Amino acid sequence: MKITKPTLLIDEIKVEKNIIKMKSKAETNNLIFRPHFKTHQSAEVGKIFKDNGITKITVSSVDMAKYFAKNGFRDILIAFPVNILEIDQINDLAAKVKLSLLVESSQTAGFISKKIEYPTNIYIKIDTGYHRTGLELQDKIEIRDIIEICDSSQKLNFVGILTHSGQTYKAKSISEINEIHDKSRKVLNEIADYSGRSMLISIGDTPSCTICEDFNGVDEIRPGNFAYYDLMQQNLGVCSYEEIAVALAAPVVAKHKSRNEIVVFGGGVHLSKEFILKEDKPIFGKVVLLNEDLSWNHPISQTFVKSLSQEHGIISTTDDVFQKIKIGQLVGILPIHSCLTANLMRENSKLV
Amino acid sequence: MKITKPTLLIDEIKVEKNIIKMKSKAETNNLIFRPHFKTHQSAEVGKIFKDNGITKITVSSVDMAKYFAKNGFRDILIAFPVNILEIDQINDLAAKVKLSLLVESSQTAGFISKKIEYPTNIYIKIDTGYHRTGLELQDKIEIRDIIEICDSSQKLNFVGILTHSGQTYKAKSISEINEIHDKSRKVLNEIADYSGRSMLISIGDTPSCTICEDFNGVDEIRPGNFAYYDLMQQNLGVCSYEEIAVALAAPVVAKHKSRNEIVVFGGGVHLSKEFILKEDKPIFGKVVLLNEDLSWNHPISQTFVKSLSQEHGIISTTDDVFQKIKIGQLVGILPIHSCLTANLMRENSKLV
Repeated sequence: MKITKPTLLIDEIKVEKNIIKMKSKAETNNLIFRPHFKTHQSAEVGKIFKDNGITKITVSSVDMAKYFAKNGFRDILIAFPVNILEIDQINDLAAKVKLSLLVESSQTAGFISKKIEYPTNIYIKIDTGYHRTGLELQDKIEIRDIIEICDSSQKLNFVGILTHSGQTYKAKSISEINEIHDKSRKVLNEIADYSGRSMLISIGDTPSCTICEDFNGVDEIRPGNFAYYDLMQQNLGVCSYEEIAVALAAPVVAKHKSRNEIVVFGGGVHLSKEFILKEDKPIFGKVVLLNEDLSWNHPISQTFVKSLSQEHGIISTTDDVFQKIKIGQLVGILPIHSCLTANLMRENSKLV
Repeated sequence: MKITKPTLLIDEIKVEKNIIKMKSKAETNNLIFRPHFKTHQSAEVGKIFKDNGITKITVSSVDMAKYFAKNGFRDILIAFPVNILEIDQINDLAAKVKLSLLVESSQTAGFISKKIEYPTNIYIKIDTGYHRTGLELQDKIEIRDIIEICDSSQKLNFVGILTHSGQTYKAKSISEINEIHDKSRKVLNEIADYSGRSMLISIGDTPSCTICEDFNGVDEIRPGNFAYYDLMQQNLGVCSYEEIAVALAAPVVAKHKSRNEIVVFGGGVHLSKEFILKEDKPIFGKVVLLNEDLSWNHPISQTFVKSLSQEHGIISTTDDVFQKIKIGQLVGILPIHSCLTANLMRENSKLV
């Protein structure tokens, strides 16, 4: 089918390479591999994982769990603090799949223990420094209380502790990513030691899972972004441009010679408004030329998306590139944050 | 139906008040009122407009035009530079509705004149200072060429010139909005005078259409955001909190006393990552308490969304408010940019 409007191109070969690489790393380090599917939210991409032997998955909402349950996944962790308003849907899911839930308060654990109707695994969310959600080292009593609630429940099975070291996304260097990873492992193992019982220790962020080599004291990894990667990861030094597996195909609709700017149909409702700063200026994407088979090459130098409105993307470029790109042509845009772009483009994606 | 997950609440009474106020302003000033439907993208909200006698509309994509054509609108302007790759869909539309298109190059105008199969109106996009898209005052020859292409076409009917003064969104004061509006009118009228023929002059941005009083030299207005307004407009001084007609209902899933932070299920995939800066800190939304009938009141002071990830929203608040808000409760979040939030929440909205 001819592409006529913004469409997320997903390079199947790159995705599969990224999956195999991360899966091998998990195997080498004796880790359970439970990739996060919030990045792609796609049954088609889920199938690439399944074809590579991956059956345990992570999602970030009940709706996403329902979607992947419908598409054949039977071991699903919802790695988001339980929303007690959705207890009915959670029970529907727990009836069908091996469900794992995330809690971070005895109040929520108590609520679930009363309402849950089927065997369900419980992870406790730990905050090792990101300060978004989770209990901290000093919350040992609350952690113990949650474990006790699980232990005294017929249905709940406490399996372990889990963190997402999202602070790695703000790291300034590879060594800082390693430091964050080491600190997280230390905190998680202190909590496990204090509890005096065996438990699974699960970590999540793509930078640590990609970069770090020491997984001592870790049992499970849940990266998600690595399937696609993006410019944020490339900028951090976590992946190469060649590993970025998605590009937004965007039609060129106008050109402005006085500013060397090219206007594409492809805006905030396609890419999301996520940006990175380069020399204090925001960059909303980098530009690649598309080949006839819709594959793409290295980003064009001195060429980037300088601003986005709802449907417009404004590309700043050089004299030379400006001449070459024509109205009516499709260009590719590597996204800043592939999870948000893929979420927006769920209904307009194409494996290539 | 009970709300259990992030849902965009649309206050029907506020929407209708906003519509009636803008429609009256258009009538008082003898202006054609062609509101932009990209803000809501909703047939239900479209019906409120229709019930108030509004039949001419603006959209920003061919898909949106198709959607509203299917929902009974018959006079549609696609206010986005024509994407020539979509010429087949454009012809399908032009067969069914009174269609107006936007061009900003003789190249695109020439293409359309060859390919269009049904009578179609053409507006020329003018850049009066926003520097996103459009031809400028010095592009008089290109403007003349486009008009000539229309004149010599059997199907194309040149109707006028159009601008979107999006620079008003960056204005620091009401007087700056007035200055931008006055400059835009001046530029548009100089272009019209130079062309030596009568033409419609159309302007679009919500700040100008709301704030300004002098519409001399303007024939048509196309605001969109005014139907909902949002914190960006409130922050500009364009609307009051009470006029903001949408709030995201978000379930509280966790609380962190040490930081006075409340975690809601409601993140970047619900609100978008748009923010405003207050004292150099980003704010991603303000928080309102919801009444039993899902109406809401004034935002809670010293309480705001301080960060967003894919599904999480982190609310920073005071001791006092922290105590009052409970896990499992729904809170309302006034969005920064209602157009992007409404786009994300299209399938989870509720008129209240």
